[in-house]
Amino acid sequence: MTMNNRLLPTYDDVVAASKRLERVIHHTPILRSRTLNDRLGAEVFFKCENLQRTGAFKLRGAYNALSLFTPEQKRHGVLAYSTGNHSQAVALAAQILDMPALILMPEDAQAAKLAATRAYGAQVLTYNRFTEDREAISHRLAQERGMTVIPPFNHRDVIAGQGTAAMELLEQVPNLDYLFVCLGGGGLLAGSLLVAKQQTPDCKVYGAEPEAGNDAQQSLRAGRIITIPAPRTLADGAQTQALGELPFALIREHVQGILTATDEQLVEAMRFYAERMKIVVEPTGALSLAVAMHGGLDLSGSRVGILITGGNIDMARYARLLGE
Amino acid sequence: MTMNNRLLPTYDDVVAASKRLERVIHHTPILRSRTLNDRLGAEVFFKCENLQRTGAFKLRGAYNALSLFTPEQKRHGVLAYSTGNHSQAVALAAQILDMPALILMPEDAQAAKLAATRAYGAQVLTYNRFTEDREAISHRLAQERGMTVIPPFNHRDVIAGQGTAAMELLEQVPNLDYLFVCLGGGGLLAGSLLVAKQQTPDCKVYGAEPEAGNDAQQSLRAGRIITIPAPRTLADGAQTQALGELPFALIREHVQGILTATDEQLVEAMRFYAERMKIVVEPTGALSLAVAMHGGLDLSGSRVGILITGGNIDMARYARLLGE
Repeated sequence: MTMNNRLLPTYDDVVAASKRLERVIHHTPILRSRTLNDRLGAEVFFKCENLQRTGAFKLRGAYNALSLFTPEQKRHGVLAYSTGNHSQAVALAAQILDMPALILMPEDAQAAKLAATRAYGAQVLTYNRFTEDREAISHRLAQERGMTVIPPFNHRDVIAGQGTAAMELLEQVPNLDYLFVCLGGGGLLAGSLLVAKQQTPDCKVYGAEPEAGNDAQQSLRAGRIITIPAPRTLADGAQTQALGELPFALIREHVQGILTATDEQLVEAMRFYAERMKIVVEPTGALSLAVAMHGGLDLSGSRVGILITGGNIDMARYARLLGE
Repeated sequence: MTMNNRLLPTYDDVVAASKRLERVIHHTPILRSRTLNDRLGAEVFFKCENLQRTGAFKLRGAYNALSLFTPEQKRHGVLAYSTGNHSQAVALAAQILDMPALILMPEDAQAAKLAATRAYGAQVLTYNRFTEDREAISHRLAQERGMTVIPPFNHRDVIAGQGTAAMELLEQVPNLDYLFVCLGGGGLLAGSLLVAKQQTPDCKVYGAEPEAGNDAQQSLRAGRIITIPAPRTLADGAQTQALGELPFALIREHVQGILTATDEQLVEAMRFYAERMKIVVEPTGALSLAVAMHGGLDLSGSRVGILITGGNIDMARYARLLGE
């Protein structure tokens, strides 16, 4: 990581990212639900990043970061380690930018995820997550091969890229009173805050994390990053044990608050999405709706944005959750 | 029904309908899938009417028909009989236009469908579909109450309204080489043909119906409407036993052909939608993709439109189909 990446991103970085992403990403649609509007007494706008390429918003940050590589970095390629949507995003971004990508994934990762990552042209290396340290392996590999590691959230260019989702939302729907953002490592929330504070300073932005993994809530209260044991939650994309330093600095300064959702509330939100809105949302992606419905805020009379982050879920698992 | 409604709709009727619908319907998004593009060697564009209000395209035709009621008709209201998406569409259209609606539904209809129809403000009457004749009941009720019956497809204004879905698609994506349309009673296909023949005459438009209920295919071959026994198919919205006279006249004149899909192919297409595209599509709505994938046409190098008609499916049933 260069010194530069330790700096906090700014609103201008998000604007620059949105230009880089213009022809690469899908400009995902806004959906609405009269049922939910009636229930909350509000006007709710869903930004559907589950309909993004690779099925999640992560392509925004990954592509933005990779497109800023020097020719030397590009020649050696990128390395990422993640069990989740960041891996596929890095793989696709590397393919688009025509650079090598090495993705480190646990050997017991879902076969579908391994296959999807390989299908984007990346080399996938597996490790035993019970006996091996993925950070140590990845940094050794990166050194050996001269590759640049792109982390999933604690990176200036990644955060700036993720912010473009909220920027698009605010172009599509100006004057939001509330914005709810799913929260794992904090990259998307941090980027969203940069945009909201600039474009619509009165909008109250809330992060949404699992009740069982409320490290961000704890960190906000403590005024420093709190690390928790790996939480047991359906929201596998929010099983992060701690916020990144860069996201935390932005979240701490700008966020209105952090709300939490239980697994039952996530399943209820996922069912609502499938039954009433006809979209597939993964448990982590359902956090924002779950806290809007159950977070105890009175949203009546307001304009509410809900950022849906992704829709990647194993079909057998999805069927079980819907059918319960 | 007035004499007027026995006339065939024209392209101009669709244009007029699209103006009436402008502020009522959602302009549903176009989605794409690189996976499918690679598989077919084509550029495929999905028009997502499963994301339409009420979860299906049917609101287009229902609203267009009801908005053309005379003040006298409007005062007495509308009557519809359908187990499917047309009922909810008529109920919502009547609510928007502030007129009474009476919907006749079988007493063993899904509780969720009865509730949804009532939630749109319609009065729901149930009948025993094994011992009672719904057409006789509905025409008696219509006479008693002075209500106007709006059938689900065999009606000039309904067909014109349904045509607006294809019109929107062709505005969003010009120059399609192929268009695949789900087919039950034929209203949507007939409306789509009116639009395609006018706007893009070289586009080959195919209807897609269940293999077990291929009455349209048979009718096209015979040159007259063939009535079949109620087919056993997952595609409950295409269990129609015969095309309507008006749709048939247009389909016969303009359609490129009718292709069929098996239940297994419908489930495969539904899973593709959920897993790769993150949208919920009902079995009937998956017909168009199923025939594009398995209909034996070489689509390579072409631009293909796929009209997805709806996403209304009981969650327990959906979970079973995805989990199989």
